[in-house]
Amino acid sequence: MSAEVTIVEVGPRDGFQAIAPIIPTERKIEFACKLADSGLRRIEIGSAVNPKLLPQMADVFDVHTAVRNLRPHVALSILAPNRKGVELALAHGVEEIVYVLSVSESHNRSNVHRSVAQSLADFVDITALVQGIADFRVRVDLATAFHCPFEGVTSERAVLTVVERLLAARDDIEICACDTTGRASPWAVREFFARCRSAFGADRPWAFHGHDTYGLGLANVVQAFEAGVRVFDASFAGLGGCPYAPGATGNVATEDVAFLFENASVSTGLDLAGLVAVAGQAATIEGAQAGGRVKFLSPAQACRSGITATV
Amino acid sequence: MSAEVTIVEVGPRDGFQAIAPIIPTERKIEFACKLADSGLRRIEIGSAVNPKLLPQMADVFDVHTAVRNLRPHVALSILAPNRKGVELALAHGVEEIVYVLSVSESHNRSNVHRSVAQSLADFVDITALVQGIADFRVRVDLATAFHCPFEGVTSERAVLTVVERLLAARDDIEICACDTTGRASPWAVREFFARCRSAFGADRPWAFHGHDTYGLGLANVVQAFEAGVRVFDASFAGLGGCPYAPGATGNVATEDVAFLFENASVSTGLDLAGLVAVAGQAATIEGAQAGGRVKFLSPAQACRSGITATV
Repeated sequence: MSAEVTIVEVGPRDGFQAIAPIIPTERKIEFACKLADSGLRRIEIGSAVNPKLLPQMADVFDVHTAVRNLRPHVALSILAPNRKGVELALAHGVEEIVYVLSVSESHNRSNVHRSVAQSLADFVDITALVQGIADFRVRVDLATAFHCPFEGVTSERAVLTVVERLLAARDDIEICACDTTGRASPWAVREFFARCRSAFGADRPWAFHGHDTYGLGLANVVQAFEAGVRVFDASFAGLGGCPYAPGATGNVATEDVAFLFENASVSTGLDLAGLVAVAGQAATIEGAQAGGRVKFLSPAQACRSGITATV
Repeated sequence: MSAEVTIVEVGPRDGFQAIAPIIPTERKIEFACKLADSGLRRIEIGSAVNPKLLPQMADVFDVHTAVRNLRPHVALSILAPNRKGVELALAHGVEEIVYVLSVSESHNRSNVHRSVAQSLADFVDITALVQGIADFRVRVDLATAFHCPFEGVTSERAVLTVVERLLAARDDIEICACDTTGRASPWAVREFFARCRSAFGADRPWAFHGHDTYGLGLANVVQAFEAGVRVFDASFAGLGGCPYAPGATGNVATEDVAFLFENASVSTGLDLAGLVAVAGQAATIEGAQAGGRVKFLSPAQACRSGITATV
């Protein structure tokens, strides 16, 4: 196929935030540089959140500043779930924020401690705050876009309402639909994007953020691709395991997504061997719960069969 | 969706054969009964191969006889890669054989020690041998249908030629295309079945046997489903790791395939909780390399998010 896709590396945010032991700042910077050197051109580098609630992110702006200086060609973003986070990001010269809200009421209250209506109102404030800043980019992560751990399957009506309100506040946002629980069905993913692209425009930069908790990670990426999505979040080594599900892994692994596409001749711009190497290192971080498959294998490694009628 | 699918459990054959320490016969029987009790109605119970080459399968007919007596409603099959295996199977009252050949020449020589032409000629002999046996079923596992560890991507021409020859020998066979290396691209899987169904008839019982070595297991199952396939091989706990790829897992896990479909309202007839329980037990078999995701989770277990702007 002659298509190309963009992978947004979210490991330094979504992956590292799930790791309790504090990773030294220098090591975070080193990982981000290695990811950049594997070809990643978009990295979500951390969260601007209360360091008392999330100590792992206390050094987010040190990491951001260092990586921006060391790898100036890479677009770095910071997740900012509220106005205070956005103000901090702006004060540190951040050029892209990731705002997050959930489509489902109960998850939004659990995650960002306010109603969906309040999150939407806050988003209007935030867009006003960043209005007019040249080349500033706003992405919105739409959590529980498919399924909510408290409310089950998310209604299409709720999604369309939220997206409509977001676009009314700022038209040029990238909207990333997130399969928070990993339970989105591949068919639901395809229908979701087909519906959104039909309702709000196929040319918008729709993105998909998938989890591999139930093994559906790549299946859902394929279906999002089939529906026209070309931007995919992923986390190196599949970092981002859910602390409430021992043994389960979280985000779809960057190296798995890269393999999926490169193996099908869809260009990712990534160096798979480099990604596999850095993923292997990430799997050794104390407290990390690594997932994914491809990091176990060298890309050239083929599974040779024996004398046992293997199929 | 209002579809239904059939999952063929291949763990007692494809999974157990990858385990070096001999599993006691009684334990094999117990596992097969638990699989049957989880709703599986087709189980590939073992291989009729030289026990010197594959000691794990030395008790295959004891297991077959016991499970047939204990769970008579389940259709049991035996993999038989040659005429001698088929004769043994017939002598033990087996009612379904699985013949295996590879589309690629070098893999067929490595796996069953003969040329593709010789395997096809042997198949003609075997169909003559079982001709006229009432209700006898013949399945053919088409190894390296998509990708060969020695030759790379399999040519469509080679596949069509082999399938044509197989159907000429016996028209009512079930043909199962096997992604031996786990490197089939989801798009290649869809195209494969679309092509075969178009060339040889959509009403034939096409089946897909996927591996999860590179994380493509469920993505490929979905694409096969999209192309009209309704029969899927899977191995409980994802048993069947390739000994040449440490850390990698092999067959797509039965409980993952069941979750994929049940989660999308496609009926499998399976009891997911029962499958998860037996998969958890299988993961403790000495020497087993378990894969899959769903066995780590209770189906009702949702990944709840925290205060950290999880998406």
